[in-house]
Amino acid sequence: MSESTAREIAERIDHTLLKPNAGRNEIARLCNEAIGHHYRTVCVNPTHVRFCVYRLAHSKINVAAVVGFPLGANCTEIKVAETKLVVDHGGTEIDMVINVGMLLDEKISVVKDEIAAVVLAAGGLPVKVILEMNLLNQEAKVRGVEVCIAAHAAMVKTCTGFADGSGATVEDVTLIKGLLGGTNLGIKASKGIRTLKQARELLDAGANRLGIGQAASLSIVQEALAEV
Amino acid sequence: MSESTAREIAERIDHTLLKPNAGRNEIARLCNEAIGHHYRTVCVNPTHVRFCVYRLAHSKINVAAVVGFPLGANCTEIKVAETKLVVDHGGTEIDMVINVGMLLDEKISVVKDEIAAVVLAAGGLPVKVILEMNLLNQEAKVRGVEVCIAAHAAMVKTCTGFADGSGATVEDVTLIKGLLGGTNLGIKASKGIRTLKQARELLDAGANRLGIGQAASLSIVQEALAEV
Repeated sequence: MSESTAREIAERIDHTLLKPNAGRNEIARLCNEAIGHHYRTVCVNPTHVRFCVYRLAHSKINVAAVVGFPLGANCTEIKVAETKLVVDHGGTEIDMVINVGMLLDEKISVVKDEIAAVVLAAGGLPVKVILEMNLLNQEAKVRGVEVCIAAHAAMVKTCTGFADGSGATVEDVTLIKGLLGGTNLGIKASKGIRTLKQARELLDAGANRLGIGQAASLSIVQEALAEV
Repeated sequence: MSESTAREIAERIDHTLLKPNAGRNEIARLCNEAIGHHYRTVCVNPTHVRFCVYRLAHSKINVAAVVGFPLGANCTEIKVAETKLVVDHGGTEIDMVINVGMLLDEKISVVKDEIAAVVLAAGGLPVKVILEMNLLNQEAKVRGVEVCIAAHAAMVKTCTGFADGSGATVEDVTLIKGLLGGTNLGIKASKGIRTLKQARELLDAGANRLGIGQAASLSIVQEALAEV
């Protein structure tokens, strides 16, 4: 992707606004920017899904909603109910957070069953599974990716953006890519992506999707447009 | 409360551990500390409620669980379902986050109806409503407190601890106290309380409860014990 154009980059980007104080005007602007720059999705909190679906009805832009976000420390029943509600509201992609504490406690089947339940609730829509890599040791990262494969996730996503840490790294994307091997799962790199150079490096390492906050997402596309 | 003893302070404290990577050993330690120091509650994520209820069965310590936490930007149906599940699991207090964006957008009835629905789902158990004061302007703070009164919340709580900002201040507690007037609602001050002096100032200003993270909560009680 080193030669990728602004359009090619934008089509890999989930244009993201998840702060709790976002109001309707900011979400409307997010949607307008997504149309203007051809982002793949807008990524929002569940309370905004219906509004985004309405605003984007005549575009090809998907509406991705976060589930169990950002702590992932609520119960499976609630993540499942939230997924179903997002689907009812017209959302087309789910970004769920795993139960990080359970993964670290090596309660692997609990973590796997939860992801599988959300995948089932999504009824065929893609589920990206956020491992919150910055909170995991190497062993937990490996187990996390294995669990995503076993539970039929669509993508492994690196971070919520709400925990401390460096965010998406080429090292983590390379590790995930190796573990995914010949499977059809994708990789979404997220958190701390602020420059076109970073975006291209992560795509080159094997990321299929980039989760980027509203401001950086705009400046990265501007950077790519300026190359023309 | 300026003369309050360690025991009196501890009985005002929700001993809190909400980080997503907390495992069972850390939660068990939190419960043991709550027993040893006579904290009012342990405050945890929903995934840990059953475990805490089991560990604290022979104590008087309540189990407070967070709902719609920490962003509050999910849907009312999900906050209601999460509250019911916490009650089913034996939790005895609910700390819910309001829809901050809706409050700032002045969709007051939406915010009020959501709190009322959670209060109903809690079936008589106390619901503390987190306004996330650091994200609100003065007008929204006033409206937020009014909505808590109208929706029959048990307490107004200042912060989640997960947003930027100064956290609980004497000014905010004084403001809330004035707005609550002769009602029977309480005040829970939370975020950034790290010293005994701060704790006493907030109690003196009118706070009935203090939400304090595990480490600071221990050191504050040690500080009070050292006075004896």
